[in-house]
Amino acid sequence: MQPINVGIIGFGTVGSGTVEILLQNQDIIGNRVGSDIVIKRIADIDLDSDRGVPVDPGVLTTDALEVINDPEIDIVVELIGGLEKAKDYILMAMEKGKHVVTANKALLAEHGEEIYQAAQEYGVSLAFEASVCGGIPVIRSLREGLSANRIQTIIGILNGTSNYILTQMTQKGLPYSQAVKEAIDLGYAEDPPTLDVDGTDAAHKLSILISIALGIPVSFNSIYREGIDRLTPEDIRFASEFGYCLKLLAIARDLGDRVEARVHPAMIPQNHIMANVNEAYNAIYIEGDFVGPNLYYGLGAGKRPTGSAVVSDIIYLARQMRQGIKTFMPPLAHVRKREFDLSIQPIEALNTSYYFRFSAVDKPGVLSRISGILGDNQISISSVIQKGREINGSVPIVMLTHEARESSVKRALSLMDQLDVLTDKTMVIRVEEG
Amino acid sequence: MQPINVGIIGFGTVGSGTVEILLQNQDIIGNRVGSDIVIKRIADIDLDSDRGVPVDPGVLTTDALEVINDPEIDIVVELIGGLEKAKDYILMAMEKGKHVVTANKALLAEHGEEIYQAAQEYGVSLAFEASVCGGIPVIRSLREGLSANRIQTIIGILNGTSNYILTQMTQKGLPYSQAVKEAIDLGYAEDPPTLDVDGTDAAHKLSILISIALGIPVSFNSIYREGIDRLTPEDIRFASEFGYCLKLLAIARDLGDRVEARVHPAMIPQNHIMANVNEAYNAIYIEGDFVGPNLYYGLGAGKRPTGSAVVSDIIYLARQMRQGIKTFMPPLAHVRKREFDLSIQPIEALNTSYYFRFSAVDKPGVLSRISGILGDNQISISSVIQKGREINGSVPIVMLTHEARESSVKRALSLMDQLDVLTDKTMVIRVEEG
Repeated sequence: MQPINVGIIGFGTVGSGTVEILLQNQDIIGNRVGSDIVIKRIADIDLDSDRGVPVDPGVLTTDALEVINDPEIDIVVELIGGLEKAKDYILMAMEKGKHVVTANKALLAEHGEEIYQAAQEYGVSLAFEASVCGGIPVIRSLREGLSANRIQTIIGILNGTSNYILTQMTQKGLPYSQAVKEAIDLGYAEDPPTLDVDGTDAAHKLSILISIALGIPVSFNSIYREGIDRLTPEDIRFASEFGYCLKLLAIARDLGDRVEARVHPAMIPQNHIMANVNEAYNAIYIEGDFVGPNLYYGLGAGKRPTGSAVVSDIIYLARQMRQGIKTFMPPLAHVRKREFDLSIQPIEALNTSYYFRFSAVDKPGVLSRISGILGDNQISISSVIQKGREINGSVPIVMLTHEARESSVKRALSLMDQLDVLTDKTMVIRVEEG
Repeated sequence: MQPINVGIIGFGTVGSGTVEILLQNQDIIGNRVGSDIVIKRIADIDLDSDRGVPVDPGVLTTDALEVINDPEIDIVVELIGGLEKAKDYILMAMEKGKHVVTANKALLAEHGEEIYQAAQEYGVSLAFEASVCGGIPVIRSLREGLSANRIQTIIGILNGTSNYILTQMTQKGLPYSQAVKEAIDLGYAEDPPTLDVDGTDAAHKLSILISIALGIPVSFNSIYREGIDRLTPEDIRFASEFGYCLKLLAIARDLGDRVEARVHPAMIPQNHIMANVNEAYNAIYIEGDFVGPNLYYGLGAGKRPTGSAVVSDIIYLARQMRQGIKTFMPPLAHVRKREFDLSIQPIEALNTSYYFRFSAVDKPGVLSRISGILGDNQISISSVIQKGREINGSVPIVMLTHEARESSVKRALSLMDQLDVLTDKTMVIRVEEG
């Protein structure tokens, strides 16, 4: 069989991981495809850095168009990241009839619809397993493995950097700022790690997962998000006393006529299968109406795991080519569109339980005033911890609520803000019973 | 688009789950395939039982050949289980040019090669996601998601019944016999649950996973297996004191020129991601050379999860048909065969650490005689628990070893058997550090 030629745009971390796998595992990849995969061209603005992989210098170019316009290249792999340029390259490659592999979650979350439509228009395939949780084949599982199911719930630990930071805060009792510093020093976080810790990266990934689960692109901007920077080791300790641990979760639920989609720190029970997902690991918990609960776990970033996903996509497209077909299924794995539009429920309509930490002056009657306001707003308390120890001159009162409505919680908290017995803003963390 | 016609042979538990999904989720399945999936015929020897799903009686037949010979049926689903008849039906259906879906792990483990070859000979597809761990799409992940990797390690909790029994023994301190009785009463185990608890079922599944990982069928009979029936709640408690828990594991490792493949009870560290896999859940831990560790978790049996896997295979084959192709890839997902044969390493050559529980008389010098024999056989001890409490008139001496060779352990134990200070056979459990 004729070899299949691949062109790569972007020879950074993921690009060099991809090249390393294609070279080091070329025998087994060839066995699995039935044809050899050849790296025909690699474009990058930096031709000088040593990536530690043996590449014929003649393959390298600074001009991405030399990849896109090469008539012998069958599959173009976009690994430069960013929005505009990456989108242009992908669309140009598709126009030339090339299949495209990308790891670009931000691009798909923000301009996915345009790219999915272009793939269908030009009759080519788009593969993007690497865009969500690196080495975990969750996109494939949603597109194929769980295809018999209505996907009801997705709960993900989708960002390895913030999971690493929270793990350090939990295991060593570090404050947020110090855990971030250590993560940066050890290479687990960029400096500053803004998009990782503020929930943006997880929301990008969640929007892609929802789109595949439900079959239509979902607007990334309407996903509620909240970061981990305000969390304290005290809250992690109190959570643990209640039997919970703290994770940055990305949560989606199909509510029938609308969808819940949110990214925020949340408490989950310590015996939940996700509770042991620590360090830089990612996990995605998916419930389907027939399959029940499923969990997928692995490394969500790094050149080797992400390279593994990119190469699995190259293999998939190469297998298609060997069968003489252009696309096995559309990008979102739905041939017919869902009949109605997908609107994301505003966060105010959420019903969940909550953790509150009040900073109160140490006087009689405080608890009764707090619980009075909660009661007036239909928020009922399930358990309370009140401890004598002072933090910054006040006493923490910590409680868990039964299920309540987010809008009621907001109203209650704005009333609390006016209480003179509370010395600081109240810490609120949502609880996910799973 | 024309509908795609499915015929089902076997209308038992999994059969009725499959029908229920095809009926209840026909809208989303149709959206995902782009064609409707129609149940054209169902064969079963029992036409009278109520399966709780609304099926037109005209669809039912007692004659499997009416399914196989129906020229309008595109996909035949074999769900009768067992070996000879199931094999005949599958081969006949393939000969008629039909694609086949099966959930029959025993058949694939024992006669897989013949069936895989027939599929290739007749140019049809064989799909068998439901044969390993029901609702967990692990076969698809090995065939596609991890296809860029050399699969180095597979560690599975592949049998839900024995995991349920071990969970009850662990959480309630029940002896084996009582935990089995409860599992039977609650419908988690057949009566008697022989193939589930003796490791046969897990070995069937492991042989299928190895075949896909490495690309050639592996002989199920050469997989070492050992059941859970000799385990006691005391061993589970001692394991816990050492920081381990007890699971029935199916383990495979690619050793380059041969493969390790074994099913037996094993101790794993309590902080291992598999340690929280309890009740009837299954999990498969897979390490690839680039992707690193991956875990897949879910329900491995039951009509709904297994039906989910069967229907995902029907969808996969229907998508193929819509693309006008017969088979996207061969059953074991390798087009070229591995160049050498795959021999399974005999258990005697295993190197691992061990847990020993000696039943000793309570006299001075016992420990020194035991450790003397171990030392003579190059087995070094990493920790010991010796407790005063008597069990059946003797005192337990419990120890963990460093890595040792199985053949040395066997030799040492046969020497111990002759010691008059030991009152019972020594309990040996392998330790999997993960």
